Amino acid sequence: MSRVINFNAGPAGLPLPALERARDEFIEFGKSGMSIMEHSHRGKDYEGVHNEAIALLKELLAVPATHEVLFMQGGAHLQFSTIPLNFLPPGKTADYVITGNWANVAASEAKKLGALGVGKVNVAGNTEVEKKFTRVPTQAELKLTPDATYVHTTSNNTIFGTQFQAFPDTGAVPHICDMSSDILSRKLDVSKFGMIYAGAQKNIGPSGVTVVIVKKDALARCTRPIPSMLDYRIHVKKESLYNTPSTVGIFVIEQVLQWIQDEGGLSAIHARNEDKAARLYAELDRTAFWRPHANPDSRSRMNVTWRIHNPDLEAVFIKEATAVGLNGLKGHRDVGGLRASIYNACPTESVDALIAFMKDFEKRNG
Amino acid sequence: MSRVINFNAGPAGLPLPALERARDEFIEFGKSGMSIMEHSHRGKDYEGVHNEAIALLKELLAVPATHEVLFMQGGAHLQFSTIPLNFLPPGKTADYVITGNWANVAASEAKKLGALGVGKVNVAGNTEVEKKFTRVPTQAELKLTPDATYVHTTSNNTIFGTQFQAFPDTGAVPHICDMSSDILSRKLDVSKFGMIYAGAQKNIGPSGVTVVIVKKDALARCTRPIPSMLDYRIHVKKESLYNTPSTVGIFVIEQVLQWIQDEGGLSAIHARNEDKAARLYAELDRTAFWRPHANPDSRSRMNVTWRIHNPDLEAVFIKEATAVGLNGLKGHRDVGGLRASIYNACPTESVDALIAFMKDFEKRNG
Repeated sequence: MSRVINFNAGPAGLPLPALERARDEFIEFGKSGMSIMEHSHRGKDYEGVHNEAIALLKELLAVPATHEVLFMQGGAHLQFSTIPLNFLPPGKTADYVITGNWANVAASEAKKLGALGVGKVNVAGNTEVEKKFTRVPTQAELKLTPDATYVHTTSNNTIFGTQFQAFPDTGAVPHICDMSSDILSRKLDVSKFGMIYAGAQKNIGPSGVTVVIVKKDALARCTRPIPSMLDYRIHVKKESLYNTPSTVGIFVIEQVLQWIQDEGGLSAIHARNEDKAARLYAELDRTAFWRPHANPDSRSRMNVTWRIHNPDLEAVFIKEATAVGLNGLKGHRDVGGLRASIYNACPTESVDALIAFMKDFEKRNG
Repeated sequence: MSRVINFNAGPAGLPLPALERARDEFIEFGKSGMSIMEHSHRGKDYEGVHNEAIALLKELLAVPATHEVLFMQGGAHLQFSTIPLNFLPPGKTADYVITGNWANVAASEAKKLGALGVGKVNVAGNTEVEKKFTRVPTQAELKLTPDATYVHTTSNNTIFGTQFQAFPDTGAVPHICDMSSDILSRKLDVSKFGMIYAGAQKNIGPSGVTVVIVKKDALARCTRPIPSMLDYRIHVKKESLYNTPSTVGIFVIEQVLQWIQDEGGLSAIHARNEDKAARLYAELDRTAFWRPHANPDSRSRMNVTWRIHNPDLEAVFIKEATAVGLNGLKGHRDVGGLRASIYNACPTESVDALIAFMKDFEKRNG
């Protein structure tokens, strides 16, 4: 077997040691005589996996005792509706900061729920210019509602390759953040957030699991009946075992989290991610042959987006890169050009291989 | 490795050939140089898996062209809310037939949504006696609403071990059925249902995927805005790729469906399941030492429930059975006693091993 170099935006590459560990126990978990998928989610074998995955997340992210970690289903997308159902009562307002496509969808799903009696959505900031986003807003630009029930932001934007380097200050208003594409990529002060959520398929594990980190005292705000599966209070009370979770997904997540810890935890991962991104942006800034998309102060460490000065060369670049084993570099259609997603599992050597290919490509086409 | 005999109620045993196939490709899918979990859900490799799993479900269940097969998330539990949001407009009534705990939860989740403006729930039948269910209702017992928007039933009840042998006739009213615990266990006329749904973790594959089979013309009934992730119209239009599904779950499901086909399809599986259940019920009827729970005409072919004439022996039975490798036989607390879940992946030999143990146990304790 030869592993290709994978720059997919998500589902993304997973660390090989985590995959190998999961594969080795895929048919028999421990000495239990059955796969983890065949264990009851209420039996001690699966509960060990479940609790260990939650404990590792708490440890790696230094989650304070004020917050609880949940595993849910339906991706970040279902959270877009679940958040206002829980936290946006009739007559109240929530602030949304629009920095990319997913932030837009989060706001429009919340607006849609007006028909089911939830409160109002205020767009507190929007950096869209001619259907593109090249930056996140400054604090001064935000028009926050003083008595909002929450402020919603999107930490990192996979499509446009922008990222908050410092998060907005939301004052006393709970800050709810979609960190689907950069959770576990850098150190984080969880205590500053009312809620953090993330689809697993970038830095956490396979798709089909959503990680939610919610401040417990925020949950008292929800007083009306909502579907039980969308009720954070129930999932907190039942420790994410109200219904059967994706047991195979959480089993793989446990292996990925263990790998992060083996690598030295978030400090080491953070430093490596900064270094990888710095190398790639240095190449993009070296020559006018490349045209980096995001503003320097808003550049994502996870998704690096750029065009070529002559756009006709972009298709050639992708074809030749794929031929030498550099996969997943085609930019999203909303930006065009090229995108390298360099999540946690992408090693520095893969970034170096891409840079070497880029230098060679410029030489041949410059 | 030695595989234990697994009578778990769910997540349940999976066929070993399917597990082995998934394990063999767990790190490298085909010759793609990466795991299926690392492929984009919009790339051709994953799409092949996705489409093949849907095609196999359509073929095995002979799904007519009037119906579409969807993969969703959140288990049957999230469907309990999703169904009324889609199909129960204000001012209308839906009929629920209560034959066990999950049917009860389905009805109570629908009632809860009155607060979000959905219509009324009518209990059209309820076979509960002293907090227990021992049978499903007869057609004559049902009090169906003539202009109901749908009738909801639960095909098989894992806790009490009852099952509809013939489904109620709902006339022109769409019949929506939770088949979580017996889908793919027997031949089925899908054309008779407005919708069928099932959590995957009994006969389909790992937990974390929900299969929905919905009649397309029923979807026009939903006209108000609901969360996109709960909107069947969107999932039909996007072919279950509106958001990132559980790609690893659907990959394992593809292997399980392939195994069912290799075994001879639903005719062969159906015959084997009838035979397995007949052997076990024959043992239960052979001696007054055992006290089968369900009425003979409502007996489940998937979950066989019984007590011992002297309940003190039940804990002894479970302990000794576990010691000889017969796992998962403890009954649900609502019934007590014993339960053997004998889903598709449970071979006839496992049922025979249980029967042999039972005969020996009676001899020693009778």
